Amino acid sequence: MPYLACTGCGKKYPLERHLRCGDCGEPLEVRYEALTPPARIEEEPCFIARNANIFPFPDFRPELSLGEGATPLLEAVHLAEETGIAEIYLKNETVNPTWSFKDRGTSLGIQAALQFGLTRVGTVSSGNMAASLAAFAARAGLEAYVYVAGDIPEGKIAPIAIYGPRLSRGIGDYGRLYYNALALGEKRGIYFISSDNPFRVEGQKTVAYEIFDQLDYEPLDFIILPVSSGGNMAAVIKGCEEMEELGLIKKAPLVIGVQAAGCSPIARAVAEGREKVEPFPNPATIAHAIANPFPPSGNRILRKVREGRADVITVTDEEIIAAQAFLAQKEGLFVQPAGAAPVAAIRKLAAAGRLKPEHRIAAILTGSGLKDTGALAHHHLEVVSVPVDELG
Amino acid sequence: MPYLACTGCGKKYPLERHLRCGDCGEPLEVRYEALTPPARIEEEPCFIARNANIFPFPDFRPELSLGEGATPLLEAVHLAEETGIAEIYLKNETVNPTWSFKDRGTSLGIQAALQFGLTRVGTVSSGNMAASLAAFAARAGLEAYVYVAGDIPEGKIAPIAIYGPRLSRGIGDYGRLYYNALALGEKRGIYFISSDNPFRVEGQKTVAYEIFDQLDYEPLDFIILPVSSGGNMAAVIKGCEEMEELGLIKKAPLVIGVQAAGCSPIARAVAEGREKVEPFPNPATIAHAIANPFPPSGNRILRKVREGRADVITVTDEEIIAAQAFLAQKEGLFVQPAGAAPVAAIRKLAAAGRLKPEHRIAAILTGSGLKDTGALAHHHLEVVSVPVDELG
Repeated sequence: MPYLACTGCGKKYPLERHLRCGDCGEPLEVRYEALTPPARIEEEPCFIARNANIFPFPDFRPELSLGEGATPLLEAVHLAEETGIAEIYLKNETVNPTWSFKDRGTSLGIQAALQFGLTRVGTVSSGNMAASLAAFAARAGLEAYVYVAGDIPEGKIAPIAIYGPRLSRGIGDYGRLYYNALALGEKRGIYFISSDNPFRVEGQKTVAYEIFDQLDYEPLDFIILPVSSGGNMAAVIKGCEEMEELGLIKKAPLVIGVQAAGCSPIARAVAEGREKVEPFPNPATIAHAIANPFPPSGNRILRKVREGRADVITVTDEEIIAAQAFLAQKEGLFVQPAGAAPVAAIRKLAAAGRLKPEHRIAAILTGSGLKDTGALAHHHLEVVSVPVDELG
Repeated sequence: MPYLACTGCGKKYPLERHLRCGDCGEPLEVRYEALTPPARIEEEPCFIARNANIFPFPDFRPELSLGEGATPLLEAVHLAEETGIAEIYLKNETVNPTWSFKDRGTSLGIQAALQFGLTRVGTVSSGNMAASLAAFAARAGLEAYVYVAGDIPEGKIAPIAIYGPRLSRGIGDYGRLYYNALALGEKRGIYFISSDNPFRVEGQKTVAYEIFDQLDYEPLDFIILPVSSGGNMAAVIKGCEEMEELGLIKKAPLVIGVQAAGCSPIARAVAEGREKVEPFPNPATIAHAIANPFPPSGNRILRKVREGRADVITVTDEEIIAAQAFLAQKEGLFVQPAGAAPVAAIRKLAAAGRLKPEHRIAAILTGSGLKDTGALAHHHLEVVSVPVDELG
């Protein structure tokens, strides 16, 4: 039987609603007595059915899937040419049903809520997670409670509100909003499927399995992805470790998390050799999706760095903007700023000689550029006006 | 050898750059001496490689694919419940690489441009087609010439401009812009991959093949989709007819095109039994993506209606808005207004008794809701403000 275990102190818990360790406060994760490989993408198109072997429940409702996962893995032809690295793959998570990577974790989180007999789910998010949760809750017929920051622009609210969640702007401190909403959830039976929810993490780990499936389990040296709260990065590392245990791959790739220099609490702790993440003062970056100044899974990532499984680095906003333009104008993929951060990192690490021509690399592009069109103001985009009659 | 033939008078042309018939002015289409079935989705993930058998060229550059196609086919659980029709499938084209159905046609159109040795491609579009063309041209290293309407809002320009096309606002009459841009293209060697480009149509037909592949070639009574210029609808009909010829299906489904009542030139011609589409006066609908008042493939659709292959109906803006809300709030899918039109049609035709409980139906959801967030102003979306300290 699968169970929960603390990623910090190892304390075990039954497979229930717990989110974090009662003793040390670190996030819990799902562990399995025995694991068997998932089906291949070509064998089973449904996300839930395909991954049933690497998910913790004996039964599922696959009809609640929105078609998440099985996203394309493209060769980065032009980035390879620029950097001299022959094999760079781009995992395009922008073509998930709500156009971000979050759908994988939400899908399993919703199944967990149903297993626990709950009818209310919640999240504190102003972006990808809010839309994803509201969409999957709608399909499952669950009530979704979404708490957004008080200062979120109107333009970002409507694409969440259209799914019909109970939507609240939290007027006041955003950090406290998270804890107060969670406390409210406890009282009212709202199951929060936040970034470090153990079942969200199980859903998110599938992206690592898929990348290797799509590469026919040929080895990779690095998987590079943006990191904010740390939950998704922890999931990718977990997926790689599981595949190693299962013998699907010989050696897990090093997972490199990328933070924006203007909000890089995990990278800072890595650089300073600390065991605990501290709140990042005055966070400022255009990559809003990775701007968590005090990441709840930060310490967990630091443990993986010490184990030699992971690293965390930074890129500047200028490098992110340049990578966003490169991806659109060379590779044909328009991603939100956070999604461009791994490409910025590849260019930086290649220039520094840490990534070498013989390395095999996969980068995860996390969300659609349509999610944050405000960021386009940072580009010099040209449009000329032409009188119709002067054409032709 | 495949060749081009006029969909109006049947005149044959070699497989070259021609777009319309020199004699009667109707669109050309690709015809094959012999056709063999495409590979199944499970056999070949790449769009170009999978469909090589049903595409007209002997060689391709599959690395220019952006991962288009192979989009999910979901059961419309809630719509089935509401209408009493047991089997309704939703083909979610919003998860293509530029988040609309256009990517299928652009993908093959770009391959055609390369076959013809051209380095410049163009389109006149302010929406899905413009972004799609700019993205695929970027990946292929071709120059993209995109002409948009003079009055297009800034917010819609940037998500096209980010791909780096040569972008021109046409100041003056939008109808004339199309013809003048085409004339300019002739002079300057710009290959226009417009909605009725024969190779775009070949790319678009793949959606019909995929729907049946995903249903294991079980029969369908209807495929329902929005129709504007008529090119995509013609492509879906063509795909169904080809599958019938190939023996993949016994009988092609009736293809029902849906227009917005406020801009319904083809539906009007059908209702009045005319053989030619006439310009629709004073077009007005919130479904901008299907607001072509004088569709270039309109007569072609009318011929298919007379052959008993197709029908065209209308829905009101109110019905579209209600269907958009239903799709998001019940099925978990947020589509642009045009993409909701087929669902509005299903509700309407079921209520009228034309669609019956035993019918098997597929609806094509053409584009992401993020493409037209302005339309959200038509919904009553609720968000409450809550002081953070009063939570918990």
